[in-house]
Amino acid sequence: MKLSIENWRVLDGAGNFIALDGNDRGLAYGDGLFETMRIHDGRPVWWREHWQRLARGADVLGIPSPNEAAIAAHTLELIAGRSQGVLKLVLTRGVGGRGYAPPMPAQATVVLSWHHLPGPEPGDGLNLRWCQLQLSEQPVLAGIKHVNRLENVLARAEWSDPELHEGLLCDAQGRLVSATSSNVFVHLDGRWQTPRMDRCGVAGIARDWLLKNIQDAVVADLTRQEVRSSAALMVCNSVRGIRQVRRLEAQVWPTSPAVIELRRLLALAEPAFARSP
Amino acid sequence: MKLSIENWRVLDGAGNFIALDGNDRGLAYGDGLFETMRIHDGRPVWWREHWQRLARGADVLGIPSPNEAAIAAHTLELIAGRSQGVLKLVLTRGVGGRGYAPPMPAQATVVLSWHHLPGPEPGDGLNLRWCQLQLSEQPVLAGIKHVNRLENVLARAEWSDPELHEGLLCDAQGRLVSATSSNVFVHLDGRWQTPRMDRCGVAGIARDWLLKNIQDAVVADLTRQEVRSSAALMVCNSVRGIRQVRRLEAQVWPTSPAVIELRRLLALAEPAFARSP
Repeated sequence: MKLSIENWRVLDGAGNFIALDGNDRGLAYGDGLFETMRIHDGRPVWWREHWQRLARGADVLGIPSPNEAAIAAHTLELIAGRSQGVLKLVLTRGVGGRGYAPPMPAQATVVLSWHHLPGPEPGDGLNLRWCQLQLSEQPVLAGIKHVNRLENVLARAEWSDPELHEGLLCDAQGRLVSATSSNVFVHLDGRWQTPRMDRCGVAGIARDWLLKNIQDAVVADLTRQEVRSSAALMVCNSVRGIRQVRRLEAQVWPTSPAVIELRRLLALAEPAFARSP
Repeated sequence: MKLSIENWRVLDGAGNFIALDGNDRGLAYGDGLFETMRIHDGRPVWWREHWQRLARGADVLGIPSPNEAAIAAHTLELIAGRSQGVLKLVLTRGVGGRGYAPPMPAQATVVLSWHHLPGPEPGDGLNLRWCQLQLSEQPVLAGIKHVNRLENVLARAEWSDPELHEGLLCDAQGRLVSATSSNVFVHLDGRWQTPRMDRCGVAGIARDWLLKNIQDAVVADLTRQEVRSSAALMVCNSVRGIRQVRRLEAQVWPTSPAVIELRRLLALAEPAFARSP
Protein backbone atom coordinates (compact mmCIF):
# COMPACT_ATOMS: atom_id res chain seq x y z
CA MET A 1 0.00 0.00 0.00
CA LYS A 2 1.51 3.27 -1.09
CA LEU A 3 1.05 5.93 1.55
CA SER A 4 -0.20 9.22 0.27
CA ILE A 5 1.91 12.33 0.67
CA GLU A 6 -0.56 13.38 3.38
CA ASN A 7 1.20 10.89 5.59
CA TRP A 8 4.72 12.25 5.52
CA ARG A 9 6.64 15.50 5.85
CA VAL A 10 10.19 16.40 4.89
CA LEU A 11 11.80 19.08 7.03
CA ASP A 12 15.19 20.58 7.67
CA GLY A 13 16.69 20.44 11.14
CA ALA A 14 15.02 23.72 12.06
CA GLY A 15 11.60 22.37 11.09
CA ASN A 16 11.17 24.18 7.75
CA PHE A 17 9.47 22.27 4.95
CA ILE A 18 11.92 21.17 2.26
CA ALA A 19 11.77 18.91 -0.79
CA LEU A 20 13.27 15.45 -0.59
CA ASP A 21 16.46 15.62 -2.63
CA GLY A 22 17.75 12.81 -4.85
CA ASN A 23 21.20 13.49 -3.41
CA ASP A 24 20.17 13.08 0.22
CA ARG A 25 22.87 11.10 2.01
CA GLY A 26 20.21 9.04 3.73
CA LEU A 27 19.41 7.55 0.34
CA ALA A 28 23.02 7.54 -0.89
CA TYR A 29 24.73 5.87 2.07
CA GLY A 30 22.14 5.14 4.74
CA ASP A 31 23.80 8.09 6.46
CA GLY A 32 21.20 8.63 9.14
CA LEU A 33 19.14 7.41 12.08
CA PHE A 34 15.53 6.61 12.82
CA GLU A 35 13.00 6.26 15.60
CA THR A 36 9.67 4.45 15.50
CA MET A 37 7.18 5.64 18.09
CA ARG A 38 3.84 4.31 19.23
CA ILE A 39 1.11 6.93 19.02
CA HIS A 40 -1.59 6.52 21.65
CA ASP A 41 -4.49 8.88 22.38
CA GLY A 42 -2.89 11.32 19.97
CA ARG A 43 0.50 11.55 21.66
CA PRO A 44 3.85 9.84 21.06
CA VAL A 45 4.74 7.31 23.76
CA TRP A 46 8.28 7.66 25.18
CA TRP A 47 8.99 10.80 23.11
CA ARG A 48 11.71 11.89 25.54
CA GLU A 49 13.47 8.50 25.42
CA HIS A 50 13.27 8.31 21.63
CA TRP A 51 14.62 11.83 21.31
CA GLN A 52 17.51 11.07 23.68
CA ARG A 53 18.49 7.98 21.68
CA LEU A 54 18.26 9.99 18.45
CA ALA A 55 20.53 12.68 19.93
CA ARG A 56 22.99 10.01 21.10
CA GLY A 57 23.08 8.51 17.61
CA ALA A 58 23.47 11.96 16.01
CA ASP A 59 26.43 12.53 18.29
CA VAL A 60 28.05 9.24 17.20
CA LEU A 61 27.54 10.02 13.51
CA GLY A 62 28.32 13.72 13.81
CA ILE A 63 24.93 14.78 12.43
CA PRO A 64 23.58 18.04 13.88
CA SER A 65 20.62 17.31 16.17
CA PRO A 66 17.42 18.87 14.85
CA ASN A 67 15.39 21.38 16.86
CA GLU A 68 13.32 19.23 19.19
CA ALA A 69 10.52 21.76 19.74
CA ALA A 70 10.08 22.37 16.01
CA ILE A 71 10.04 18.66 15.14
CA ALA A 72 7.69 17.92 18.05
CA ALA A 73 5.29 20.57 16.72
CA HIS A 74 5.32 18.97 13.24
CA THR A 75 4.83 15.55 14.83
CA LEU A 76 1.74 16.74 16.71
CA GLU A 77 0.39 18.35 13.54
CA LEU A 78 0.92 15.11 11.56
CA ILE A 79 -0.76 12.91 14.16
CA ALA A 80 -3.58 15.35 14.93
CA GLY A 81 -6.97 13.64 14.79
CA ARG A 82 -5.36 10.22 14.64
CA SER A 83 -5.65 8.41 17.92
CA GLN A 84 -3.69 5.17 17.41
CA GLY A 85 -0.78 4.46 15.13
CA VAL A 86 2.94 4.67 14.59
CA LEU A 87 5.12 7.70 13.89
CA LYS A 88 8.43 7.17 12.21
CA LEU A 89 11.17 9.79 12.26
CA VAL A 90 14.18 9.52 9.96
CA LEU A 91 17.10 11.91 10.48
CA THR A 92 19.77 12.08 7.78
CA ARG A 93 22.94 14.09 7.21
CA GLY A 94 21.05 15.84 4.42
CA VAL A 95 22.17 16.62 0.89
CA GLY A 96 25.71 15.89 -0.15
CA GLY A 97 27.43 16.08 -3.48
CA ARG A 98 29.24 12.82 -4.04
CA GLY A 99 31.84 11.04 -1.95
CA TYR A 100 31.81 9.78 1.60
CA ALA A 101 33.31 12.89 3.22
CA PRO A 102 30.52 14.47 5.29
CA PRO A 103 29.61 18.01 4.21
CA MET A 104 30.71 20.56 6.82
CA PRO A 105 28.48 21.88 8.16
CA ALA A 106 25.74 19.38 7.33
CA GLN A 107 22.12 20.49 6.96
CA ALA A 108 20.12 17.59 8.38
CA THR A 109 16.95 16.23 6.80
CA VAL A 110 14.04 14.99 8.92
CA VAL A 111 11.33 12.78 7.44
CA LEU A 112 8.24 12.21 9.57
CA SER A 113 5.75 9.57 8.49
CA TRP A 114 2.49 8.24 9.86
CA HIS A 115 1.68 4.53 9.76
CA HIS A 116 -1.18 2.35 10.92
CA LEU A 117 -0.71 0.03 13.87
CA PRO A 118 0.62 -3.37 12.85
CA GLY A 119 -1.84 -6.25 12.80
CA PRO A 120 -2.82 -8.21 15.91
CA GLU A 121 -0.77 -11.09 17.31
CA PRO A 122 -1.99 -14.12 19.25
CA GLY A 123 -2.65 -13.40 22.94
CA ASP A 124 -0.95 -16.56 24.12
CA GLY A 125 2.45 -15.66 22.75
CA LEU A 126 4.59 -15.49 19.65
CA ASN A 127 6.00 -18.12 17.37
CA LEU A 128 9.74 -17.59 16.67
CA ARG A 129 12.50 -19.05 14.55
CA TRP A 130 16.27 -18.79 14.45
CA CYS A 131 17.50 -16.68 11.53
CA GLN A 132 20.31 -17.97 9.33
CA LEU A 133 21.89 -14.54 8.93
CA GLN A 134 24.57 -13.73 11.50
CA LEU A 135 24.89 -10.11 12.61
CA SER A 136 28.27 -8.48 12.05
CA GLU A 137 30.09 -6.75 14.90
CA GLN A 138 30.70 -3.02 14.67
CA PRO A 139 31.20 -1.53 18.16
CA VAL A 140 31.24 2.03 16.78
CA LEU A 141 27.66 1.69 15.49
CA ALA A 142 26.30 -0.78 18.06
CA GLY A 143 23.34 0.32 20.15
CA ILE A 144 22.27 3.32 18.05
CA LYS A 145 19.33 3.10 15.66
CA HIS A 146 21.05 3.98 12.38
CA VAL A 147 19.49 3.29 8.98
CA ASN A 148 22.10 0.78 7.77
CA ARG A 149 19.59 -2.02 8.24
CA LEU A 150 20.24 -4.44 5.37
CA GLU A 151 21.01 -7.19 7.87
CA ASN A 152 17.58 -6.80 9.46
CA VAL A 153 15.94 -6.67 6.02
CA LEU A 154 17.68 -9.87 4.87
CA ALA A 155 16.95 -11.65 8.16
CA ARG A 156 13.27 -10.70 7.98
CA ALA A 157 13.16 -11.86 4.35
CA GLU A 158 14.09 -15.39 5.48
CA TRP A 159 10.43 -16.22 6.13
CA SER A 160 7.03 -15.23 4.77
CA ASP A 161 4.81 -17.50 6.89
CA PRO A 162 2.40 -15.12 8.71
CA GLU A 163 2.20 -17.63 11.59
CA LEU A 164 5.88 -16.93 12.32
CA HIS A 165 6.13 -13.65 14.23
CA GLU A 166 9.82 -13.01 14.78
CA GLY A 167 13.28 -14.39 14.13
CA LEU A 168 16.15 -14.55 16.60
CA LEU A 169 19.54 -13.27 15.49
CA CYS A 170 22.98 -14.26 16.72
CA ASP A 171 26.41 -12.86 15.96
CA ALA A 172 29.09 -14.92 14.20
CA GLN A 173 30.17 -16.33 17.59
CA GLY A 174 26.71 -17.75 18.15
CA ARG A 175 25.76 -15.25 20.86
CA LEU A 176 22.14 -14.08 20.93
CA VAL A 177 21.73 -10.41 19.92
CA SER A 178 18.05 -9.67 19.34
CA ALA A 179 15.06 -10.45 17.16
CA THR A 180 14.75 -8.70 13.77
CA SER A 181 12.73 -5.77 15.20
CA SER A 182 12.65 -6.41 18.95
CA ASN A 183 15.00 -6.93 21.84
CA VAL A 184 14.93 -10.21 23.73
CA PHE A 185 14.84 -11.10 27.42
CA VAL A 186 15.59 -14.62 28.63
CA HIS A 187 14.60 -15.89 32.10
CA LEU A 188 17.58 -17.92 33.19
CA ASP A 189 19.02 -18.88 36.58
CA GLY A 190 16.09 -17.16 38.28
CA ARG A 191 16.43 -13.76 36.61
CA TRP A 192 15.84 -11.86 33.39
CA GLN A 193 18.87 -11.53 31.15
CA THR A 194 19.20 -9.59 27.88
CA PRO A 195 22.12 -9.41 25.43
CA ARG A 196 24.71 -6.65 25.45
CA MET A 197 24.29 -4.03 22.72
CA ASP A 198 27.91 -2.91 22.49
CA ARG A 199 29.00 -5.11 19.56
CA CYS A 200 25.86 -5.11 17.41
CA GLY A 201 22.11 -4.60 17.73
CA VAL A 202 19.92 -1.69 18.76
CA ALA A 203 19.45 -0.69 22.40
CA GLY A 204 15.65 -0.49 22.37
CA ILE A 205 13.55 1.94 24.36
CA ALA A 206 11.31 -0.85 25.69
CA ARG A 207 14.47 -2.79 26.63
CA ASP A 208 15.67 0.25 28.60
CA TRP A 209 12.30 0.43 30.34
CA LEU A 210 12.53 -3.24 31.32
CA LEU A 211 16.12 -2.90 32.53
CA LYS A 212 15.05 -0.02 34.76
CA ASN A 213 11.88 -1.68 36.01
CA ILE A 214 12.95 -5.28 36.65
CA GLN A 215 14.86 -5.27 39.94
CA ASP A 216 17.51 -7.85 39.14
CA ALA A 217 17.61 -7.83 35.33
CA VAL A 218 21.11 -8.14 33.90
CA VAL A 219 22.89 -7.62 30.61
CA ALA A 220 24.79 -10.75 29.64
CA ASP A 221 26.26 -12.90 26.87
CA LEU A 222 23.73 -15.60 26.02
CA THR A 223 24.21 -18.68 23.87
CA ARG A 224 21.60 -20.49 21.79
CA GLN A 225 21.69 -23.27 24.38
CA GLU A 226 20.91 -20.83 27.20
CA VAL A 227 17.96 -19.49 25.22
CA ARG A 228 16.67 -23.06 24.81
CA SER A 229 17.05 -23.86 28.50
CA SER A 230 15.37 -20.65 29.70
CA ALA A 231 12.25 -20.74 31.89
CA ALA A 232 10.60 -17.98 29.83
CA LEU A 233 11.40 -15.78 26.86
CA MET A 234 9.99 -12.39 25.90
CA VAL A 235 10.54 -9.84 23.15
CA CYS A 236 9.90 -6.12 23.38
CA ASN A 237 9.81 -3.00 21.27
CA SER A 238 8.32 0.45 21.51
CA VAL A 239 5.48 -0.21 19.08
CA ARG A 240 4.09 -3.43 20.59
CA GLY A 241 5.47 -3.36 24.12
CA ILE A 242 6.21 -6.73 25.75
CA ARG A 243 5.22 -10.08 24.23
CA GLN A 244 5.89 -13.54 25.54
CA VAL A 245 7.41 -16.14 23.25
CA ARG A 246 5.24 -19.23 23.15
CA ARG A 247 7.18 -21.26 20.64
CA LEU A 248 10.73 -21.27 19.26
CA GLU A 249 10.92 -23.82 16.47
CA ALA A 250 10.08 -27.16 18.14
CA GLN A 251 10.14 -25.85 21.70
CA VAL A 252 7.06 -24.55 23.55
CA TRP A 253 6.92 -22.53 26.77
CA PRO A 254 3.91 -22.30 29.11
CA THR A 255 2.38 -18.92 29.89
CA SER A 256 4.68 -17.07 32.27
CA PRO A 257 3.13 -15.28 35.27
CA ALA A 258 6.29 -13.13 35.34
CA VAL A 259 5.66 -11.84 31.82
CA ILE A 260 1.98 -11.20 32.62
CA GLU A 261 3.06 -9.15 35.63
CA LEU A 262 5.56 -7.14 33.55
CA ARG A 263 2.91 -6.46 30.92
CA ARG A 264 0.60 -5.22 33.69
CA LEU A 265 3.33 -2.91 35.05
CA LEU A 266 4.10 -1.56 31.58
CA ALA A 267 0.41 -0.93 30.89
CA LEU A 268 0.17 1.02 34.16
CA ALA A 269 3.15 3.17 33.13
CA GLU A 270 2.13 3.46 29.46
CA PRO A 271 -1.57 2.76 28.78
CA ALA A 272 -0.76 2.35 25.07
CA PHE A 273 0.41 -1.15 25.94
CA ALA A 274 -2.69 -2.21 27.88
CA ARG A 275 -3.59 -4.32 24.88
CA SER A 276 -1.24 -5.66 22.26
CA PRO A 277 -2.04 -4.07 18.89
CA MET B 1 26.91 22.91 -3.13
CA LYS B 2 23.30 21.86 -3.55
CA LEU B 3 22.73 20.27 -6.92
CA SER B 4 19.71 21.55 -8.77
CA ILE B 5 16.92 19.18 -9.68
CA GLU B 6 18.21 19.43 -13.25
CA ASN B 7 20.95 17.08 -12.16
CA TRP B 8 18.92 14.12 -11.01
CA ARG B 9 16.02 11.92 -12.03
CA VAL B 10 13.86 9.53 -10.06
CA LEU B 11 12.48 6.60 -12.03
CA ASP B 12 10.77 3.30 -11.43
CA GLY B 13 12.39 0.08 -12.60
CA ALA B 14 10.72 0.40 -16.00
CA GLY B 15 12.12 3.89 -16.49
CA ASN B 16 8.97 5.92 -15.80
CA PHE B 17 9.40 9.22 -13.94
CA ILE B 18 8.17 9.00 -10.35
CA ALA B 19 8.34 11.25 -7.30
CA LEU B 20 10.83 10.43 -4.56
CA ASP B 21 8.73 9.06 -1.70
CA GLY B 22 9.41 9.75 1.98
CA ASN B 23 8.77 6.06 2.61
CA ASP B 24 11.34 4.79 0.13
CA ARG B 25 13.22 1.90 1.72
CA GLY B 26 16.49 3.30 0.46
CA LEU B 27 16.00 6.15 2.91
CA ALA B 28 14.41 4.00 5.62
CA TYR B 29 16.93 1.14 5.76
CA GLY B 30 19.64 1.75 3.20
CA ASP B 31 17.81 -1.02 1.34
CA GLY B 32 19.52 -0.59 -1.99
CA LEU B 33 22.63 -0.51 -4.17
CA PHE B 34 24.61 2.04 -6.11
CA GLU B 35 27.07 2.46 -8.94
CA THR B 36 29.31 5.43 -9.64
CA MET B 37 30.43 5.75 -13.25
CA ARG B 38 32.97 7.93 -14.96
CA ILE B 39 31.49 9.84 -17.89
CA HIS B 40 33.95 10.51 -20.67
CA ASP B 41 33.22 12.05 -24.07
CA GLY B 42 29.54 11.84 -23.22
CA ARG B 43 29.43 8.11 -22.51
CA PRO B 44 29.57 6.04 -19.31
CA VAL B 45 32.84 4.12 -18.93
CA TRP B 46 32.41 0.41 -18.03
CA TRP B 47 28.60 0.60 -18.27
CA ARG B 48 28.37 -3.16 -18.84
CA GLU B 49 30.55 -3.99 -15.84
CA HIS B 50 28.67 -1.57 -13.59
CA TRP B 51 25.33 -2.99 -14.71
CA GLN B 52 26.51 -6.55 -14.10
CA ARG B 53 27.61 -5.72 -10.56
CA LEU B 54 24.30 -3.94 -9.95
CA ALA B 55 22.40 -6.99 -11.17
CA ARG B 56 24.52 -9.26 -8.95
CA GLY B 57 23.77 -7.06 -5.94
CA ALA B 58 20.06 -6.93 -6.81
CA ASP B 59 20.09 -10.70 -6.88
CA VAL B 60 21.68 -10.87 -3.41
CA LEU B 61 19.18 -8.41 -1.95
CA GLY B 62 16.18 -9.76 -3.87
CA ILE B 63 15.46 -6.41 -5.53
CA PRO B 64 14.02 -6.65 -9.06
CA SER B 65 16.60 -5.53 -11.61
CA PRO B 66 15.48 -2.43 -13.50
CA ASN B 67 15.11 -2.38 -17.28
CA GLU B 68 18.65 -1.78 -18.54
CA ALA B 69 17.65 -0.24 -21.88
CA ALA B 70 15.23 2.20 -20.27
CA ILE B 71 17.71 3.29 -17.58
CA ALA B 72 20.49 3.57 -20.17
CA ALA B 73 18.29 5.88 -22.23
CA HIS B 74 17.65 8.12 -19.23
CA THR B 75 21.36 8.09 -18.43
CA LEU B 76 22.25 9.26 -21.93
CA GLU B 77 19.60 11.96 -21.72
CA LEU B 78 20.93 13.16 -18.36
CA ILE B 79 24.56 13.30 -19.52
CA ALA B 80 23.76 14.75 -22.96
CA GLY B 81 25.92 17.77 -23.72
CA ARG B 82 28.15 17.08 -20.75
CA SER B 83 31.45 15.64 -21.81
CA GLN B 84 33.24 14.87 -18.52
CA GLY B 85 31.81 13.99 -15.14
CA VAL B 86 30.37 11.32 -12.90
CA LEU B 87 27.02 9.54 -13.08
CA LYS B 88 25.66 7.98 -9.95
CA LEU B 89 22.90 5.38 -10.03
CA VAL B 90 21.07 4.37 -6.84
CA LEU B 91 18.70 1.39 -6.97
CA THR B 92 16.40 0.82 -3.99
CA ARG B 93 13.68 -1.66 -3.11
CA GLY B 94 11.24 1.24 -3.49
CA VAL B 95 8.40 2.30 -1.25
CA GLY B 96 7.47 0.21 1.75
CA GLY B 97 5.05 0.75 4.55
CA ARG B 98 6.86 0.15 7.78
CA GLY B 99 8.77 -2.89 9.02
CA TYR B 100 11.74 -4.79 7.64
CA ALA B 101 9.75 -7.37 5.66
CA PRO B 102 10.35 -6.60 1.98
CA PRO B 103 7.18 -5.76 0.04
CA MET B 104 6.28 -8.54 -2.40
CA PRO B 105 6.56 -7.75 -5.21
CA ALA B 106 8.81 -4.72 -4.74
CA GLN B 107 8.67 -1.78 -7.16
CA ALA B 108 12.25 -0.61 -7.41
CA THR B 109 13.29 3.03 -7.40
CA VAL B 110 16.19 4.29 -9.52
CA VAL B 111 17.84 7.64 -8.82
CA LEU B 112 20.26 8.94 -11.46
CA SER B 113 22.42 11.94 -10.62
CA TRP B 114 25.06 13.92 -12.44
CA HIS B 115 28.18 15.16 -10.65
CA HIS B 116 31.28 17.09 -11.62
CA LEU B 117 34.61 15.31 -11.75
CA PRO B 118 36.41 15.33 -8.41
CA GLY B 119 39.31 17.78 -8.02
CA PRO B 120 42.83 17.01 -9.25
CA GLU B 121 45.34 14.98 -7.26
CA PRO B 122 49.15 15.26 -7.30
CA GLY B 123 50.74 13.53 -10.28
CA ASP B 124 53.49 11.95 -8.21
CA GLY B 125 51.14 9.89 -6.07
CA LEU B 126 48.75 9.98 -3.16
CA ASN B 127 49.23 10.59 0.52
CA LEU B 128 47.46 7.94 2.66
CA ARG B 129 46.75 7.21 6.29
CA TRP B 130 45.51 4.22 8.25
CA CYS B 131 41.91 4.63 9.43
CA GLN B 132 41.01 3.89 13.04
CA LEU B 133 37.67 2.36 12.12
CA GLN B 134 37.74 -1.40 11.58
CA LEU B 135 35.37 -2.83 8.98
CA SER B 136 32.90 -5.43 10.20
CA GLU B 137 32.63 -8.81 8.47
CA GLN B 138 29.38 -9.70 6.76
CA PRO B 139 29.96 -12.36 4.08
CA VAL B 140 26.35 -12.10 2.83
CA LEU B 141 26.85 -8.45 1.84
CA ALA B 142 30.57 -8.51 1.03
CA GLY B 143 31.60 -7.54 -2.49
CA ILE B 144 28.35 -5.91 -3.59
CA LYS B 145 27.97 -2.13 -3.64
CA HIS B 146 25.03 -1.70 -1.27
CA VAL B 147 24.12 1.63 0.30
CA ASN B 148 24.80 0.63 3.93
CA ARG B 149 27.93 2.76 3.92
CA LEU B 150 28.10 4.28 7.39
CA GLU B 151 31.46 2.60 7.96
CA ASN B 152 32.91 4.35 4.90
CA VAL B 153 31.35 7.65 5.98
CA LEU B 154 32.81 7.41 9.49
CA ALA B 155 36.21 6.32 8.17
CA ARG B 156 36.31 9.23 5.71
CA ALA B 157 35.26 11.61 8.51
CA GLU B 158 38.45 10.71 10.41
CA TRP B 159 40.42 13.37 8.52
CA SER B 160 39.75 16.72 6.89
CA ASP B 161 43.29 17.58 5.76
CA PRO B 162 43.03 18.11 1.95
CA GLU B 163 46.65 16.93 1.61
CA LEU B 164 45.54 13.47 2.76
CA HIS B 165 43.93 11.67 -0.16
CA GLU B 166 42.76 8.33 1.14
CA GLY B 167 42.60 6.16 4.23
CA LEU B 168 43.35 2.43 4.42
CA LEU B 169 40.85 0.19 6.19
CA CYS B 170 41.43 -3.12 7.92
CA ASP B 171 39.01 -5.60 9.44
CA ALA B 172 38.98 -6.40 13.16
CA GLN B 173 41.68 -9.05 12.56
CA GLY B 174 44.02 -6.41 11.15
CA ARG B 175 43.75 -7.62 7.56
CA LEU B 176 43.80 -4.94 4.85
CA VAL B 177 40.43 -4.56 3.06
CA SER B 178 40.48 -1.41 0.95
CA ALA B 179 40.67 2.37 1.09
CA THR B 180 37.51 4.36 1.89
CA SER B 181 36.48 4.68 -1.76
CA SER B 182 39.07 2.64 -3.67
CA ASN B 183 40.45 -0.85 -3.81
CA VAL B 184 44.12 -1.42 -3.02
CA PHE B 185 46.88 -3.39 -4.76
CA VAL B 186 50.13 -4.16 -2.99
CA HIS B 187 53.31 -5.22 -4.86
CA LEU B 188 54.76 -7.95 -2.68
CA ASP B 189 57.01 -10.94 -3.36
CA GLY B 190 57.30 -9.85 -6.97
CA ARG B 191 53.61 -9.65 -7.80
CA TRP B 192 50.49 -7.55 -7.33
CA GLN B 193 48.22 -8.71 -4.53
CA THR B 194 44.79 -7.34 -3.54
CA PRO B 195 42.57 -8.26 -0.58
CA ARG B 196 39.71 -10.73 -0.79
CA MET B 197 36.24 -9.17 -0.95
CA ASP B 198 34.28 -12.08 0.52
CA ARG B 199 34.14 -10.92 4.15
CA CYS B 200 33.78 -7.15 3.70
CA GLY B 201 34.52 -4.42 1.18
CA VAL B 202 33.33 -3.71 -2.36
CA ALA B 203 34.64 -5.63 -5.37
CA GLY B 204 35.45 -2.62 -7.54
CA ILE B 205 35.16 -2.47 -11.32
CA ALA B 206 38.68 -1.05 -11.69
CA ARG B 207 39.93 -3.83 -9.36
CA ASP B 208 38.28 -6.39 -11.68
CA TRP B 209 39.97 -4.76 -14.68
CA LEU B 210 43.36 -4.98 -12.97
CA LEU B 211 42.84 -8.60 -11.91
CA LYS B 212 42.04 -9.46 -15.54
CA ASN B 213 44.87 -7.43 -17.04
CA ILE B 214 47.79 -8.13 -14.73
CA GLN B 215 49.10 -11.57 -15.62
CA ASP B 216 50.05 -12.84 -12.19
CA ALA B 217 47.90 -10.69 -9.87
CA VAL B 218 46.45 -12.61 -6.93
CA VAL B 219 43.76 -12.17 -4.29
CA ALA B 220 45.24 -12.67 -0.83
CA ASP B 221 45.06 -11.88 2.87
CA LEU B 222 47.39 -8.97 3.58
CA THR B 223 48.55 -7.65 6.93
CA ARG B 224 49.52 -4.07 7.82
CA GLN B 225 53.13 -5.26 7.96
CA GLU B 226 52.93 -6.66 4.42
CA VAL B 227 51.55 -3.34 3.19
CA ARG B 228 54.48 -1.55 4.83
CA SER B 229 57.05 -3.90 3.31
CA SER B 230 55.57 -3.75 -0.21
CA ALA B 231 57.64 -2.53 -3.17
CA ALA B 232 54.76 -0.41 -4.46
CA LEU B 233 51.18 0.38 -3.55
CA MET B 234 48.33 1.56 -5.75
CA VAL B 235 44.64 2.36 -5.32
CA CYS B 236 41.98 2.20 -7.99
CA ASN B 237 38.35 3.05 -8.60
CA SER B 238 36.12 3.58 -11.60
CA VAL B 239 36.07 7.37 -11.32
CA ARG B 240 39.81 8.06 -11.08
CA GLY B 241 41.34 4.89 -12.46
CA ILE B 242 44.71 3.84 -11.05
CA ARG B 243 46.81 5.99 -8.74
CA GLN B 244 50.09 5.20 -7.10
CA VAL B 245 50.51 5.72 -3.38
CA ARG B 246 53.48 7.97 -2.68
CA ARG B 247 53.22 8.20 1.07
CA LEU B 248 51.56 6.16 3.83
CA GLU B 249 52.00 8.05 7.08
CA ALA B 250 55.80 8.23 7.60
CA GLN B 251 56.69 5.89 4.76
CA VAL B 252 57.47 7.07 1.21
CA TRP B 253 57.65 4.99 -1.99
CA PRO B 254 59.53 5.98 -5.15
CA THR B 255 57.66 6.26 -8.44
CA SER B 256 56.91 2.75 -9.70
CA PRO B 257 57.52 1.96 -13.39
CA ALA B 258 55.03 -0.92 -12.97
CA VAL B 259 52.25 1.48 -11.96
CA ILE B 260 53.12 3.83 -14.83
CA GLU B 261 52.84 0.91 -17.23
CA LEU B 262 49.48 -0.16 -15.80
CA ARG B 263 48.16 3.40 -16.10
CA ARG B 264 49.30 3.42 -19.73
CA LEU B 265 47.52 0.12 -20.40
CA LEU B 266 44.34 1.34 -18.72
CA ALA B 267 44.41 4.59 -20.70
CA LEU B 268 44.72 2.58 -23.91
CA ALA B 269 41.69 0.50 -22.94
CA GLU B 270 39.71 3.42 -21.50
CA PRO B 271 40.84 6.86 -22.69
CA ALA B 272 38.93 8.46 -19.80
CA PHE B 273 41.88 7.52 -17.62
CA ALA B 274 44.59 9.02 -19.85
CA ARG B 275 44.85 11.82 -17.32
CA SER B 276 43.90 11.66 -13.67
CA PRO B 277 40.98 14.04 -13.04
